[in-house]
Amino acid sequence: MSLLVVGTLALDTIETPFGKEEYTLGGSATFISTAASYLTSDIRLVGIVGYDFPQKELDYFKSRRIDTSGVEILKDTKTFHWHGVYSTDMNHRDTITTDLNALAKFDPKISDKFAKTEYICVGNIDPVIQQKIISQIEKPKLIMIDTMNFWIEGNPTELFKTIKHADILVVNDSEARLLTGDHNLISSAKKIMDMGPKILIIKKGEHGAMLLTKDNVFIVPAFPLEKVFDPTGAGDSFAGGFMGWIDKTKDLSFENLKLAVVFGSVMASLSVEKFSLEGLRNLENETIMKRFKEFKAITNFKEISL
Amino acid sequence: MSLLVVGTLALDTIETPFGKEEYTLGGSATFISTAASYLTSDIRLVGIVGYDFPQKELDYFKSRRIDTSGVEILKDTKTFHWHGVYSTDMNHRDTITTDLNALAKFDPKISDKFAKTEYICVGNIDPVIQQKIISQIEKPKLIMIDTMNFWIEGNPTELFKTIKHADILVVNDSEARLLTGDHNLISSAKKIMDMGPKILIIKKGEHGAMLLTKDNVFIVPAFPLEKVFDPTGAGDSFAGGFMGWIDKTKDLSFENLKLAVVFGSVMASLSVEKFSLEGLRNLENETIMKRFKEFKAITNFKEISL
Repeated sequence: MSLLVVGTLALDTIETPFGKEEYTLGGSATFISTAASYLTSDIRLVGIVGYDFPQKELDYFKSRRIDTSGVEILKDTKTFHWHGVYSTDMNHRDTITTDLNALAKFDPKISDKFAKTEYICVGNIDPVIQQKIISQIEKPKLIMIDTMNFWIEGNPTELFKTIKHADILVVNDSEARLLTGDHNLISSAKKIMDMGPKILIIKKGEHGAMLLTKDNVFIVPAFPLEKVFDPTGAGDSFAGGFMGWIDKTKDLSFENLKLAVVFGSVMASLSVEKFSLEGLRNLENETIMKRFKEFKAITNFKEISL
Repeated sequence: MSLLVVGTLALDTIETPFGKEEYTLGGSATFISTAASYLTSDIRLVGIVGYDFPQKELDYFKSRRIDTSGVEILKDTKTFHWHGVYSTDMNHRDTITTDLNALAKFDPKISDKFAKTEYICVGNIDPVIQQKIISQIEKPKLIMIDTMNFWIEGNPTELFKTIKHADILVVNDSEARLLTGDHNLISSAKKIMDMGPKILIIKKGEHGAMLLTKDNVFIVPAFPLEKVFDPTGAGDSFAGGFMGWIDKTKDLSFENLKLAVVFGSVMASLSVEKFSLEGLRNLENETIMKRFKEFKAITNFKEISL
């Protein structure tokens, strides 16, 4: 088992109705690799940070058996910093500042060892960089790519090139509509799969997630939580849970892809229950399986006949 | 088995991106009773119409074994008429006209036979009328009440009195939030259940429906349809499917309430595939069970252990 995770490593300032945390651990690669580390092993992390990135967080990754040899540390600049404020209903967030810092220089050379990885998860970054990363992988078996509205609107030409290489694309519902100009999610999904990805995941926030292939659909709700403390990283935790399960099982049958979506949803739901990475930082298998069983309970119903 | 259905009988003018139909059969009681008629029998319909209500539609109800003796026909006024226009994305609708006509005089006397019904479904009408209807039922076993933002904002005092009598309340997600002023659906749901109903159903449109009791939650997605022709009546079709199953089975265990929610979702999904009542007008058991099995397929996943 081995999974290559490429994305951002950040120090975030986050304000939600429940509090404020400054320069707390964030970034897509942080959530993806940590979530995946509970399901699979030999996770290979590629990212870039500045001189202010805490050594203890690199040590944390190592404690989760995440290989940090692909993390470049720049001595002359700070770490990528995002400051966001969530609305009272948590459904919107405003960006106060985005200090790219080290991220502006992100153009990773994938090591020989890492280039042999077969399962690849590329978080939401510039699609040009996403392409450069993919081109360095020797024989990828499965590439998952995440993106966002910023790139759909800002650089659709390069994004469409990237999407062609994706076996699995992850977008949220508004991004799916933006990509295709089609309001209906199902016909949108078909159009996106015509662009390249055989597997599409549409995240719907508090409404859950949909998994689509040419012939199948699976829909799982978000876990009903009375308090969502911090939605930051929910989508990346989902991607990490999904790819962790896929890398562990190496089974791309639709039945197993469904389980990957459930594990993605499990990790996302655990992540948002606490600030920053705290919801994922120190989990027991028992906690993960308890939540998995709760997902089963809230979605399962009997077969009957009329 | 017997189910009392009280609500509106209407002639609607509906415009969706797919077409326009004028003075077509509508109203909450129409969708509720028709949807329920595929699951249970001896449905007792209470409503009011004007001189222009087509005899063939009354005959249609009778052909579905719906007792129309509770439908009052006014000779001096027209039938309730609603004219609505749906937005391109179908997520919003504007009301062009609401001609109450006969509905303005709706204050039904429930017949002795009907007053003995145990399972009661009261569609969205004035909460004062809802209370008057409930007070005429001799020994109700289960009362489901639907309402909408119009009454939550317009007459909360009477609505809260009505809600106290409801065993099951049906609202949509924005109405649940409006009722409690609480954005979180789960804590909103708890507050609503404190008002009286032991069972709460929150409809989320294209995102499905939630069933909540004090101790349990069940969530089912909406059926993924590539074309929704006409959302009118979806919520009432849901209520009819739900109560039809409950009346058929007389089983209020949470496992069986789940099945009722699925049958509600099945009937709603079949309803919106065609204009007006056409999606429900002439269904085979086979079609209903095929959709039920499709719901199972899109939500079911295996049990596993880590």
